[in-house]
Amino acid sequence: MGTGKDIKTYMSDVSAMTEMRLRELLPSENSYPEVIHEAMAYSVFAGGKRFRPVLCMAACEAVCGNSAAALDAACALECIHTYSLVHDDLPGMDNDDYRRGKLTNHKVFGEGMAILAGDALLTYAFEILANMADEKNSLQIVQIIQEAAKASGEAGMIGGQVVDILSEQKAPDLALLEYIHSHKTGALIAASVRIGAILGGADAKQLEALTVYAQQLGLAFQITDDILDVIGDAEKIGKPVGSDEKNQKATYPLLFGLEESKQMAKDAVDASIKALELFGDNADMLRALALYLLSREQ
Amino acid sequence: MGTGKDIKTYMSDVSAMTEMRLRELLPSENSYPEVIHEAMAYSVFAGGKRFRPVLCMAACEAVCGNSAAALDAACALECIHTYSLVHDDLPGMDNDDYRRGKLTNHKVFGEGMAILAGDALLTYAFEILANMADEKNSLQIVQIIQEAAKASGEAGMIGGQVVDILSEQKAPDLALLEYIHSHKTGALIAASVRIGAILGGADAKQLEALTVYAQQLGLAFQITDDILDVIGDAEKIGKPVGSDEKNQKATYPLLFGLEESKQMAKDAVDASIKALELFGDNADMLRALALYLLSREQ
Repeated sequence: MGTGKDIKTYMSDVSAMTEMRLRELLPSENSYPEVIHEAMAYSVFAGGKRFRPVLCMAACEAVCGNSAAALDAACALECIHTYSLVHDDLPGMDNDDYRRGKLTNHKVFGEGMAILAGDALLTYAFEILANMADEKNSLQIVQIIQEAAKASGEAGMIGGQVVDILSEQKAPDLALLEYIHSHKTGALIAASVRIGAILGGADAKQLEALTVYAQQLGLAFQITDDILDVIGDAEKIGKPVGSDEKNQKATYPLLFGLEESKQMAKDAVDASIKALELFGDNADMLRALALYLLSREQ
Repeated sequence: MGTGKDIKTYMSDVSAMTEMRLRELLPSENSYPEVIHEAMAYSVFAGGKRFRPVLCMAACEAVCGNSAAALDAACALECIHTYSLVHDDLPGMDNDDYRRGKLTNHKVFGEGMAILAGDALLTYAFEILANMADEKNSLQIVQIIQEAAKASGEAGMIGGQVVDILSEQKAPDLALLEYIHSHKTGALIAASVRIGAILGGADAKQLEALTVYAQQLGLAFQITDDILDVIGDAEKIGKPVGSDEKNQKATYPLLFGLEESKQMAKDAVDASIKALELFGDNADMLRALALYLLSREQ
């Protein structure tokens, strides 16, 4: 579905497809016990950019030209991403009242229900992935379940969050910053690309190239995020500008300055596009996505 | 491994095997970031009875006579059970300071780390299950992942916890009590039996019979738990006796009285054993386990 579209249209198309499919996959908000299904839906449909689904679908297209096989996996990745936001916002973690301009899950449903809604979304992601299996593809499905679990667990996303919490009182340090980002956000970004590619039938060489693409993209994503926090517009990014600095969090601009950080983001985007050399036109959306990251304002 | 052993020896053998294997499977407490691995291990090795592993192994034996194939799944089930206890104990849920006479996870590691340790154990359970796959058994592994996810999610264990929270201010009611228990504890107990049976190669008829066994066993387990809360010894069960009554929670003794509740537990155990009629000696441990439930003191 990528060919000939510009990246913004592509992203909004994938976003719409993902949301439509998530409505079908998730338990109905009218089914008992309603409140947990409402709490799950509240955060899943809270206006996320669907960045991980876009990556998953575009990576599937890059190797096979057809992303239909990856849609349910894209939805599962979004459930995992959403659960991590719900739990990160909890009073026992970052204690945030707002996300994307809306009240956080626990502010609406209470703390206990928000913990359970996050748990349920994580669990449901694995149910969605397992339900993708049939007689022919079960080994592939097991493989994407391994990818998703590893990227989300203590060796991935959770590990990054743990180190982020532990580092709050420490002096900013590049090695720590890289560990946090490559685990907290990078691991699931890489898994999104890898899962899409596996479902598209990627061979080992393609999977390796796409992993390099995803790692560089994840780095660029984080640096631009840090930059936007410094120069961005409060309304656009939905949290107080400079909030990271106020909390004395290590960021790229804090460690390297604004201009050097911009160059680092550009270098990472260049490296991500270079990793796609062995792919033809089918990888155009992945290329456009990397360039889009540099120009985004939110 | 069951034949000829008494049930207490069998349970302690499975418990020892499960703990040994869990030590191998779980990330080392010395690996970075240590604190999350310590928090995971703290609750996994906090003296649980390993009831779900015992059920999983004994069900596998009932259909094939050999439980070796089910050991890793038994460990994954214990990780899921442990995560649910860690999250249930959180300040935003039941707010318990002690479990089995030890400080709860968040009292030792802090609330944020306890949330993450629970998340990590749930995620790791799916990684363990997926890692059991090889070229031949991947469809079976997908099936047990579906069983585990469904039993733990919003339609199972989490759904039961949700209704338990919602019912706290309501008058005791049998339908509600049955919903809570069949979901909050019954679903994972049934999944433990079913997963063991699937790994043992159960046919549809065997799986159906074992599901009935597990449902009746789960019911008996809950009724005896309620009875022990009334008549038990505080030291033995590790929480203040009568704590359920104090919190005005619906229990079987509250709804039916003590004698009637005892009879109900006995009837459920009889029904569970009756469901095993089509099995031979290989199901002896499942039978003994049901009888053991009636006589337990903790």
